[in-house]
Amino acid sequence: MPIDLRSDTVTTPTEKMRDAIRDAAVGDDVYGEDPTINHLEQLAAEIVGKEAALFVTSGTQGNQVAVLSHTQRGDEVILEEYSHIFGYETAGLSTIAGVQARTIKGVNGQMPIPDIVAAIREDDIHCPKTALICLENTHGDSGGRILPLNYMEEVYEISRQHQIPVHLDGARLFNAAVGLGVDPKEITKLVDTVQFCLSKGLSAPMGSILAGPKNFIEKARKWRKMLGGGMRQAGIAGAAGIVALEEMVGRLEEDHVHAKKLAQRLALIEGIDIDAEGVETNIIMFSIEGLGMDSEEFIEKLNEHQILANSAGPYRIRFVTHRGITKEDIGTAVEVVNRIAAGAKTRL
Amino acid sequence: MPIDLRSDTVTTPTEKMRDAIRDAAVGDDVYGEDPTINHLEQLAAEIVGKEAALFVTSGTQGNQVAVLSHTQRGDEVILEEYSHIFGYETAGLSTIAGVQARTIKGVNGQMPIPDIVAAIREDDIHCPKTALICLENTHGDSGGRILPLNYMEEVYEISRQHQIPVHLDGARLFNAAVGLGVDPKEITKLVDTVQFCLSKGLSAPMGSILAGPKNFIEKARKWRKMLGGGMRQAGIAGAAGIVALEEMVGRLEEDHVHAKKLAQRLALIEGIDIDAEGVETNIIMFSIEGLGMDSEEFIEKLNEHQILANSAGPYRIRFVTHRGITKEDIGTAVEVVNRIAAGAKTRL
Amino acid sequence: MPIDLRSDTVTTPTEKMRDAIRDAAVGDDVYGEDPTINHLEQLAAEIVGKEAALFVTSGTQGNQVAVLSHTQRGDEVILEEYSHIFGYETAGLSTIAGVQARTIKGVNGQMPIPDIVAAIREDDIHCPKTALICLENTHGDSGGRILPLNYMEEVYEISRQHQIPVHLDGARLFNAAVGLGVDPKEITKLVDTVQFCLSKGLSAPMGSILAGPKNFIEKARKWRKMLGGGMRQAGIAGAAGIVALEEMVGRLEEDHVHAKKLAQRLALIEGIDIDAEGVETNIIMFSIEGLGMDSEEFIEKLNEHQILANSAGPYRIRFVTHRGITKEDIGTAVEVVNRIAAGAKTRL
Amino acid sequence: MPIDLRSDTVTTPTEKMRDAIRDAAVGDDVYGEDPTINHLEQLAAEIVGKEAALFVTSGTQGNQVAVLSHTQRGDEVILEEYSHIFGYETAGLSTIAGVQARTIKGVNGQMPIPDIVAAIREDDIHCPKTALICLENTHGDSGGRILPLNYMEEVYEISRQHQIPVHLDGARLFNAAVGLGVDPKEITKLVDTVQFCLSKGLSAPMGSILAGPKNFIEKARKWRKMLGGGMRQAGIAGAAGIVALEEMVGRLEEDHVHAKKLAQRLALIEGIDIDAEGVETNIIMFSIEGLGMDSEEFIEKLNEHQILANSAGPYRIRFVTHRGITKEDIGTAVEVVNRIAAGAKTRL
Repeated sequence: MPIDLRSDTVTTPTEKMRDAIRDAAVGDDVYGEDPTINHLEQLAAEIVGKEAALFVTSGTQGNQVAVLSHTQRGDEVILEEYSHIFGYETAGLSTIAGVQARTIKGVNGQMPIPDIVAAIREDDIHCPKTALICLENTHGDSGGRILPLNYMEEVYEISRQHQIPVHLDGARLFNAAVGLGVDPKEITKLVDTVQFCLSKGLSAPMGSILAGPKNFIEKARKWRKMLGGGMRQAGIAGAAGIVALEEMVGRLEEDHVHAKKLAQRLALIEGIDIDAEGVETNIIMFSIEGLGMDSEEFIEKLNEHQILANSAGPYRIRFVTHRGITKEDIGTAVEVVNRIAAGAKTRL
Repeated sequence: MPIDLRSDTVTTPTEKMRDAIRDAAVGDDVYGEDPTINHLEQLAAEIVGKEAALFVTSGTQGNQVAVLSHTQRGDEVILEEYSHIFGYETAGLSTIAGVQARTIKGVNGQMPIPDIVAAIREDDIHCPKTALICLENTHGDSGGRILPLNYMEEVYEISRQHQIPVHLDGARLFNAAVGLGVDPKEITKLVDTVQFCLSKGLSAPMGSILAGPKNFIEKARKWRKMLGGGMRQAGIAGAAGIVALEEMVGRLEEDHVHAKKLAQRLALIEGIDIDAEGVETNIIMFSIEGLGMDSEEFIEKLNEHQILANSAGPYRIRFVTHRGITKEDIGTAVEVVNRIAAGAKTRL
Repeated sequence: MPIDLRSDTVTTPTEKMRDAIRDAAVGDDVYGEDPTINHLEQLAAEIVGKEAALFVTSGTQGNQVAVLSHTQRGDEVILEEYSHIFGYETAGLSTIAGVQARTIKGVNGQMPIPDIVAAIREDDIHCPKTALICLENTHGDSGGRILPLNYMEEVYEISRQHQIPVHLDGARLFNAAVGLGVDPKEITKLVDTVQFCLSKGLSAPMGSILAGPKNFIEKARKWRKMLGGGMRQAGIAGAAGIVALEEMVGRLEEDHVHAKKLAQRLALIEGIDIDAEGVETNIIMFSIEGLGMDSEEFIEKLNEHQILANSAGPYRIRFVTHRGITKEDIGTAVEVVNRIAAGAKTRL
Repeated sequence: MPIDLRSDTVTTPTEKMRDAIRDAAVGDDVYGEDPTINHLEQLAAEIVGKEAALFVTSGTQGNQVAVLSHTQRGDEVILEEYSHIFGYETAGLSTIAGVQARTIKGVNGQMPIPDIVAAIREDDIHCPKTALICLENTHGDSGGRILPLNYMEEVYEISRQHQIPVHLDGARLFNAAVGLGVDPKEITKLVDTVQFCLSKGLSAPMGSILAGPKNFIEKARKWRKMLGGGMRQAGIAGAAGIVALEEMVGRLEEDHVHAKKLAQRLALIEGIDIDAEGVETNIIMFSIEGLGMDSEEFIEKLNEHQILANSAGPYRIRFVTHRGITKEDIGTAVEVVNRIAAGAKTRL
């Protein structure tokens, strides 16, 4: 078994999840009759302090349904330039929802407040209406950075002034909560709607939650149907989600500790450029430009040593820790990178 | 437990399915690494004689992905007026794919061949391009009617002449195959692409298959991602699908026998208007107008006797047989309808 | 100069129109400062008894803007199967507005009332919302038939019951008004919004009007901008529109007389099948199947005699009368058809 | 008559244009029979060195049709953050074409070359395909800045490497050509397709041209029809366009001289911040923040002195020179600004 540092999406269900799935009470969820899904949706809504919640098949689906429910065609959505919704959801917000993306370059996932204010459109016949602000916490592409609560408060305040809803792509919401040491509600009370994943660090095999006001979730339920996300005995998948929420949040701390340690030790390797201070959750990004090789070559070499990783740019590597990564794996990974770096040095 | 004649979508997974799910080998399907899904997709492709297949979360998703993959925005799609894609998929083909629906009134789900020919547009600056013909077999809204093979051949021939692909909404493909007594391939060889459900009569908890040429499925995989249908350890759901395909097809015969018997016995009740001859698979439709009550009242009365059913019009009732309906249930249902009819007669 | 019976769109501006255009007071209409356009829009609104009006570049643009303004993506629009909006506007309502077309086969352009009622969707998670009913008066594809006022009243009543707006594609509204012998307002009071053309029989070189409630026209103005219909010194085009409305409506009577006469005389020719009674305005349709030739050949033969016409089917020909067609032209046309028919007879 | 510095869109047609319009030979352009439009399209194609051209009603329509013709739904388009297509076309590219905007912050309208390269997406199931690069020359929002030919060459080279077409929003293409002192073809040979306006500085009352390869223009013609841009006797508008192209290009020099002079003199006024060097064509932008008043107040004061202008930000004013602005007007404008500045100083 390789050490798989590509993503926390590779986590497999726990034994307890498999048992829960095996024995799940199910019904036809399109009729609202799946008791497991109903339980999951209620539980999820409570955890994030929202009126209602909806089980969706993926984070992408949750985000797209959110955009569809918040906007009308011809509107504009403000989001960070390297946000998942903009960068990795196949242009769905424009193709499906017919809305334009107004991207803003952020720092650690934080769009500068004045830039958000400047991006909000005035009523003008030439311009789309600004209908939604999207945040992402933790912010994946900046290396799992956490949006601080006071930043989110500032955005929320602006959004109230301009009467524009805020949607949070909280695919890794619980990593943010654990990282901040706060109840998730402290984060989600600062947004109108939130999507979070049951897979990833929480290890459910599939599925995400979209939560928000009741009438929003009613709309969302119909848009989910349009995307083909209305499933039948969905409790099979939902059962694992309940275990994820009830038992797996606490363990994210461990992933963060592993990521931190990994970052600190990589920082000692010559040719590796990494901001170990900036590793706040379970994602680390580092440059290998100093090694005189590109991402492709570096990853190939990792693979030779049974380590899997993803590229995050021509000279940028991403490691993600998760339930499948042990303390020993961290040690092995550091050792392997050390060896690759040493080899590179010789070559230079 | 009520006798649930609303739909075959209410079927719950078998014990064997639950065991298979419990023990499924899984991986990250977005990376193409879920062995169970890979097995299911290969098996499914073979069964319908297509190069490749894709697991999707629902029949709606399979159909929408098919439309997206076959067409470009601004095109037109020919489909039957009461087809599922047109009637019950929330206008997705227009909203997501940006294509126009050109509906044709069919008889038992069969669009008259000359009407199909007439509906194919010539190249004209005023008109969309006809880019797809959709069939539905069995055809739900006409009462599970089977499109005969020679009808499908005629459509196929026209489609070749005009170089327009044919997509089959085969949500209940296996009911059609069993009803016709043929291998499913005999049906699917007459279309370019097909969607069929693993849920419904086959009893998997969720999921459908979209099958077709390899390059079509590659495109489809990306459109599925846009709809949020890309899942992670999807093998959890897929494991039940394999059991469905390997073990459950044969049992559909029983549903058909039950439906036929139910129809024949309902035909004997005064005030019930039903074409028992036309019951070819597991769906029966009948009019209760002769009872002097409307669907809503009739269904309420059924409910009082622990029978669930759906309305198919102001005076039209739909019964669907499935794995959860026994021979005894059929008897009970007939008895209850008899009693309701007797009561209605008194009232008249 | 050939006798051009293809369409009334071929009419060229009158000398008075050319003079009006030459001397038009103009300004930047995007700023609302074109006095000629402002005058035209006010005049047009008054003529059809609506609060406000908007100058658009074509009937298609007026209809598309109407659909965009009345609906949201994911909605459904009811329209006649051979209506212009559905058949000849390049699928715009699905591609641009993201709405699904629910077509109903009409008789002389009249969708049967019970079919309209049946087509209105109930609130259901599987179904789009019925958001608009479209009528077309006169109805082009049925041969310029007029929707009777009592028919329109019935549709209007249904639309009020279901709170669904009605849009009228009145590209040839004035032909309908003249044909009925009523003020256009008698027609337009039975719809929420109306589009009518300044070109066609009224002979302006370009442009149409969309009229309706004030807040509707405000929305429409923005959607028009999106389609690129916001023009600058548009008064150049608008000046001719004012002449069209003030001076050209009366002359449509003549086109109707010509069409009637033409139809009656064609009816006498063996092999020509035409319902002369049904010719109510300026369009006539007839079958030439009895001549043993198809439309293409028939039109070629017409062309040899300097007569232009359009096909309306494999064996169906359309003649349209307009300002460019004189009484003499009618005589010539009949003569030519006679000659072609005679030749065909010999051949048979 | 106020001095209207808001935009060159306010220019009214010349007497020669009015005469040309008056006497234009016209026909039905949807049938391709308007001789004036045919002449205009041929002339326009020649001027920019492209195979074919299409008359459209506005620059917005030309750009939207270009995006529709170059892309498929789900694609991504690279454009400058303050480009007209992104900022002032009502989100049409997402709503109509279903494509996502990938904006890059430019300097004087020039997106940094490395940023363009970085923005081109690799083939990835999560990402839209990069299908088009848009440039704008002159670039309006940066103050009419000209994209240098060597910059455009660099973009063109990248586009060839990646096989991505380049569309030029050349609404003010001739200002760029005159400013550079080159034949327009020197600019347009570096792009696949180009849109340029006949209105604005060239003074035609309406209309723009989209030019490119023949098969592109064929596609464009159909998309134009969908947007309602297919007009009938469009020669009325086109006649002025011919005069614009034949006689008005030369006079743009004068607008540039006026703008330069205006900028240089404004630069001498205390409290006005302006980069007079950067005024390359007919647009000037300046900050009035130093006057201690905002745009709204400043414009109001201008209006009191019969000068019209547009805001380009909370403290940023835009002046545009054009045929309606004389040398004397420039003097008056400077004088008025001087007076306002003096008053402001007193107040501070």
